[in-house]
Amino acid sequence: MMKYNYGTNELNNWLVAETQFSSKALGKAEATMCLGNGYMGLRSATEEHYPGEVRDLLVAGTFNKFDDNEVTELPNAADVTNFDIKIDGEQFSLDFGVVKEYVRYLNLKHAELVRELNWVSPQGKEIRFRFRRFVSFADKHIIAMKLTVEPQNESVCFALESGINIRMTNSGAQHFSEGDRRIFDKRYIQQCQTTTQSKIDFVINTAHTVRLGGEQIQQDVTMEMARRKVWLCFNIDVERGQCLEIEKITTIHTSRDNDGPADGDFATIRATGLAGLKSAIAVGYDGLFARHRAAWDEQIWAKYHMTLDSDNEYDLLALRFALYHLTIMTPMHDERMGIAAKGMSGEGYKGHSFWDTEIFIFPFYIYSNPAVAKSLLMYRYHGLAGAHKKAAENGYQGAMYPWEMAWPTDGEVTPVWGAVDIVTGLQTKIWSGFIEQHITADIAYAVWSYYCVTGDQAFMDEHGYEMIFDTAKFWSSRLEWNADKQRYHINDVIGADEYKEHVDNNAFTNYMAHFNIELAMRYYETVKAEKSELFAQLDSKLALVETHAGWLDRIDKIYLPQPRPNDAVIPQDDTYLSKKIIDLSKYKNQQKVGSMFYDYNLEQANEIQVSKQADIMMLFYLLENKFAPATKIANYNYYEPKTLHDSSLSLSTHSILANDLGHYDLAYELFERAARIDLGENMHSSDEGIHAASIGGIWQIVVMGFAGIRMNAGKLRICPKLPEKWSKLSFGIYWQQQQLNISIDKQSLMIITATDQPVTLTVRDQEYSFTNELIVAI
Amino acid sequence: MMKYNYGTNELNNWLVAETQFSSKALGKAEATMCLGNGYMGLRSATEEHYPGEVRDLLVAGTFNKFDDNEVTELPNAADVTNFDIKIDGEQFSLDFGVVKEYVRYLNLKHAELVRELNWVSPQGKEIRFRFRRFVSFADKHIIAMKLTVEPQNESVCFALESGINIRMTNSGAQHFSEGDRRIFDKRYIQQCQTTTQSKIDFVINTAHTVRLGGEQIQQDVTMEMARRKVWLCFNIDVERGQCLEIEKITTIHTSRDNDGPADGDFATIRATGLAGLKSAIAVGYDGLFARHRAAWDEQIWAKYHMTLDSDNEYDLLALRFALYHLTIMTPMHDERMGIAAKGMSGEGYKGHSFWDTEIFIFPFYIYSNPAVAKSLLMYRYHGLAGAHKKAAENGYQGAMYPWEMAWPTDGEVTPVWGAVDIVTGLQTKIWSGFIEQHITADIAYAVWSYYCVTGDQAFMDEHGYEMIFDTAKFWSSRLEWNADKQRYHINDVIGADEYKEHVDNNAFTNYMAHFNIELAMRYYETVKAEKSELFAQLDSKLALVETHAGWLDRIDKIYLPQPRPNDAVIPQDDTYLSKKIIDLSKYKNQQKVGSMFYDYNLEQANEIQVSKQADIMMLFYLLENKFAPATKIANYNYYEPKTLHDSSLSLSTHSILANDLGHYDLAYELFERAARIDLGENMHSSDEGIHAASIGGIWQIVVMGFAGIRMNAGKLRICPKLPEKWSKLSFGIYWQQQQLNISIDKQSLMIITATDQPVTLTVRDQEYSFTNELIVAI
Repeated sequence: MMKYNYGTNELNNWLVAETQFSSKALGKAEATMCLGNGYMGLRSATEEHYPGEVRDLLVAGTFNKFDDNEVTELPNAADVTNFDIKIDGEQFSLDFGVVKEYVRYLNLKHAELVRELNWVSPQGKEIRFRFRRFVSFADKHIIAMKLTVEPQNESVCFALESGINIRMTNSGAQHFSEGDRRIFDKRYIQQCQTTTQSKIDFVINTAHTVRLGGEQIQQDVTMEMARRKVWLCFNIDVERGQCLEIEKITTIHTSRDNDGPADGDFATIRATGLAGLKSAIAVGYDGLFARHRAAWDEQIWAKYHMTLDSDNEYDLLALRFALYHLTIMTPMHDERMGIAAKGMSGEGYKGHSFWDTEIFIFPFYIYSNPAVAKSLLMYRYHGLAGAHKKAAENGYQGAMYPWEMAWPTDGEVTPVWGAVDIVTGLQTKIWSGFIEQHITADIAYAVWSYYCVTGDQAFMDEHGYEMIFDTAKFWSSRLEWNADKQRYHINDVIGADEYKEHVDNNAFTNYMAHFNIELAMRYYETVKAEKSELFAQLDSKLALVETHAGWLDRIDKIYLPQPRPNDAVIPQDDTYLSKKIIDLSKYKNQQKVGSMFYDYNLEQANEIQVSKQADIMMLFYLLENKFAPATKIANYNYYEPKTLHDSSLSLSTHSILANDLGHYDLAYELFERAARIDLGENMHSSDEGIHAASIGGIWQIVVMGFAGIRMNAGKLRICPKLPEKWSKLSFGIYWQQQQLNISIDKQSLMIITATDQPVTLTVRDQEYSFTNELIVAI
Repeated sequence: MMKYNYGTNELNNWLVAETQFSSKALGKAEATMCLGNGYMGLRSATEEHYPGEVRDLLVAGTFNKFDDNEVTELPNAADVTNFDIKIDGEQFSLDFGVVKEYVRYLNLKHAELVRELNWVSPQGKEIRFRFRRFVSFADKHIIAMKLTVEPQNESVCFALESGINIRMTNSGAQHFSEGDRRIFDKRYIQQCQTTTQSKIDFVINTAHTVRLGGEQIQQDVTMEMARRKVWLCFNIDVERGQCLEIEKITTIHTSRDNDGPADGDFATIRATGLAGLKSAIAVGYDGLFARHRAAWDEQIWAKYHMTLDSDNEYDLLALRFALYHLTIMTPMHDERMGIAAKGMSGEGYKGHSFWDTEIFIFPFYIYSNPAVAKSLLMYRYHGLAGAHKKAAENGYQGAMYPWEMAWPTDGEVTPVWGAVDIVTGLQTKIWSGFIEQHITADIAYAVWSYYCVTGDQAFMDEHGYEMIFDTAKFWSSRLEWNADKQRYHINDVIGADEYKEHVDNNAFTNYMAHFNIELAMRYYETVKAEKSELFAQLDSKLALVETHAGWLDRIDKIYLPQPRPNDAVIPQDDTYLSKKIIDLSKYKNQQKVGSMFYDYNLEQANEIQVSKQADIMMLFYLLENKFAPATKIANYNYYEPKTLHDSSLSLSTHSILANDLGHYDLAYELFERAARIDLGENMHSSDEGIHAASIGGIWQIVVMGFAGIRMNAGKLRICPKLPEKWSKLSFGIYWQQQQLNISIDKQSLMIITATDQPVTLTVRDQEYSFTNELIVAI
């Protein structure tokens, strides 16, 4: 993908583009140029078909499980974007004929996908095509498309087949039973379907408007229905110099919608959908687009108002790309739904939520849009039901959060089988759902961060304390007493570094568990002292007093791996440092992640000092006060060379830490690498969808790293250090429910508050209290 | 498709070919060049992908029902034929680069699909490709493929990805749960899956053999597994002048196989499949191919030994094409399975059996391969269970055969909803499963024909009489007494002509029902008189004596529509002749069937004198003695102009009748048209699969029509009338278990028998009895 400037300067650094089309690497543009609004994600497959395309339309929260051998996933609902076009009987495809003046770009500012080109058919007819589409941010049920066709040299007969196709699957898994379908008035197409297991009803409506030379024309259409497919066929003669415009507006409604009728009655959804379509059609593409743009401007760009002056303009594009994707991936409309690891830009990770949300994306929302941060925590609060289920299944108490979470009450949904084992030829077992347990502490950490940054006491009273206590209750039951060492261990886990399975005392896990219990104990005292009614309520729910006794007994006996006296290296787990050291250069800078597994199976990798991603580094980032700077440096220098960054979660943490530790050039280099995970040259890295955590990481590198914003022990700290190439960075954050507008340049830090509330913060170890405005030379 | 001669004369008129490839009309070659062996059908999609391709692999009898809204169907099992090829990193596709010396042909004699071409890559590397494949007729579980690659101008790096892909669906309906998969020895790939509802286990095994310059080479492969997909990646440098050969052998086994372990245990099937693959791999493509060819030669071509001298060589090709497809579509290995309306060449009609089998295909088997004819009747005998179920559901007695039949015990499996209604925009209801009832009599007719032609008394004693009695029992309960007219009517049916729904007293249905009861009454007397034990047995099973009383009472009161006194036209039903007559020329010779429904809905068509297919004509063909020649002519002249031939079942009947009635040129013209239904120029007519009944019809036109072979009142009658362009036709038939070799030329008919058994027959109203040889001047 490339930066692209087009037309006025107004759109400089707003366009992610390609100026050449290749039908051999479709996934990149499909995912990185994905459209969405949190309600749904529409992968940007082209209107015409190519082999290998992935045409996903995913609706948040509509999970379905294909069968008992599989895990629940977001089902691929329908293809409504296909235009099957023939010019004088010849199939329109960029694989045939000649393509001129080609550009396809995602306009991040307007959240619109545009494709323009001249196509010379094999017969020699030249036609200008302009394809536009967006997924409305103003009315979340709407997908709008517009096509203009202008014959350049000769008149043409333009034929179009377009409708609704529900033959779609998730890599072969069909999640829907076909329901009723109908064509009203030879124009409005309606297709119903219901997920096979979760029984969620979907209603998809679509209609076309055709204009020739600016005039809406009577459509001479034929209607077609085949299995799981309904469509219309248009045949229109277009003269040279004439402009044909075709608009297609589609609406999606489901029985899971929280803005629909309470009973979710199918007939009502059908009527609502059809009525919605008819009023949208009356407004038309341009009118709907104006509303959509306004919504993006007001709710996103004006709210986050982030600007950056960099010698490398790509940096600003990357940042806007991040804000764009963070917006479209987040189901901010419904607190029963979480953020998926690939957003809704592909089928990878099945729409499940991981620790990616709390550790990589959540900071963006706490500081930029606290209401959404709260909604994301509410998703986890609703998920307590599933967490209890998982704890009980594993013989523990309290809330043991699933490694992968789908619908809140589902519990653990991590699939059990993965890629091929090169030694046995069998499928590798995925252990994360069983033993990657730090997620529970990660969620507690997020609750704590949210509370510290927002001061949202109501949330804590109603939900937050309960989550902290319930998760600490799990950890308490999880600890294993080692009589020899007279300590509590956490054995047989996967830590943050997923290349080490079945390890004992993973440093990250042990510290985070300790943090979680410690936090619960602190809050226990507060709630007990200050909120007796709430305390009684939570005690009856969680046996809090009894549970607290356990914490008290255990907290100081939890084993926390310490730096080795000789070199200050903290053992990542009990055996890591005793494992074989090999030359990893072959795998360290590969194009494709996981290349090591063409040479080793997981069992063999387990015996080598090799890491997939940040583990101890993550600890340093999250619990920064627990470790001395020298320890951080020593461990960075020890572990980074052994880390393959095979997870997109690795680079951002390393960049922030590199900045903290004074490796400024490296920090910037890692930022650039992180930005290129999706935007970069590797044409297949985004095939399964964009990397949501990495995109959150881009924002974190900028704001937590270069701007140096950090919540430290409940206080706001700013420690800016812009990269060499950057002259100015400004953005807004929320602190204790007040908006702070922050500008940083080479000389100074300026903060302007939106209200008269006083603000206290630290800038480079110096505490400041101010109202309205603060300027600090740096 | 075209006739193609290649190499030696030996293969003249054996090759169905295309010499130009178009990725825009894939279905034609996929279906008409389909491979199979009755156990499975493998649609001939190309090795590389194109949009719109349909890659079906169907295994007979493995029906599965996606959900309660759908009907059971043959599931698309897997794609094992895809070769994803890159030449120096460039995707191999005929849509790119330059294609030279292209030919793709189905060799009917060897049942092998071959594709040869030179491909000049966009970079300018020229490579000769030769793709071959067959579905073994010697070992029905085997699919074998062979690819040769020869760089023509420069050395190339050849990359191949190939394995097993079970992401396949039937137009979006996924029928399988994914099972275990494994790669043994980095070579043998095994993928298991199980149908979701019928719980049939499938095991697919595949392996590759690579030879470079004739020497088998060690494969440096990487192994990949993704969801529902397992494959290997090969990278091989091939020098100019070198020949790279890749063989891929695949085996399919299922728990429905009747040659597998009795308990159908999954582990045993896996072991059997893998062992089968290993021994096949040891034999190799060429060895397996030799066995396969020998099987076709011995079991098919030598057995049917049909020859034809025609001025139009295409006629012979069409005839061989028919014999080829009749062979691969028929599950002759298992009497629990029937012939599907599209064979196993596509998903159309879901693998279901219709009256197409008994009326259009069955004559071929009675005369050419009676053992298979018996197997097909046994399928219907097993189907009595389903027929009883359907009768009971509809409030009738006896055996009411399903209009569409899948697994014998399933009963009725006709889908309920079809294409769009152009007036209401709703889906049209398909009534055939409810009221197209003549199928029951058609099956009785087939039993009778089989018995008359073969004299297989054992079959009649064990199964045939019971089928005749049980079906007649149904009809007896089905008749409706009309007190006004003092006759039995059959109201509210669809006759053979499906454009008339809910009609009363369809002539075809009434006559066939009458035939069925009359036949039962005749056999009742025989069995009662000659086989008292059997009679007692059937009486206790079917309440025969009581049922017989009903027949006796009803048989002479069944209303049989008679020719009108003024013009000898027999009313097709009670109201047909009173309906509107319109100009049908717009629809009469259209490319696409059903074009009338773009202007009228079915309800409206019901009010017009228009027919989809032969109805009264079919009656004349099946019950030829019941009608006077003048009546036949009058009705032909009245109904044919009103018949759109929108069913592929229409032309063959009309051709045979035209020949009978002396319209010889028309008969030949209709033969040519029938042959072109699949082989002709309409590039989309076979998209959903070949037309099995029409292909059976091709054979019938030749043997029943032009050669004039007919069983008439239990006797063999020959009344040859070759088309003008034909100088000689010869073929074998079986009559009363003796093979007769028949040669017809312009002057004479010659019959040579295989044994010394005397034969009695009629040639043009003259009776002959002879042994060994008969020559009659004509």
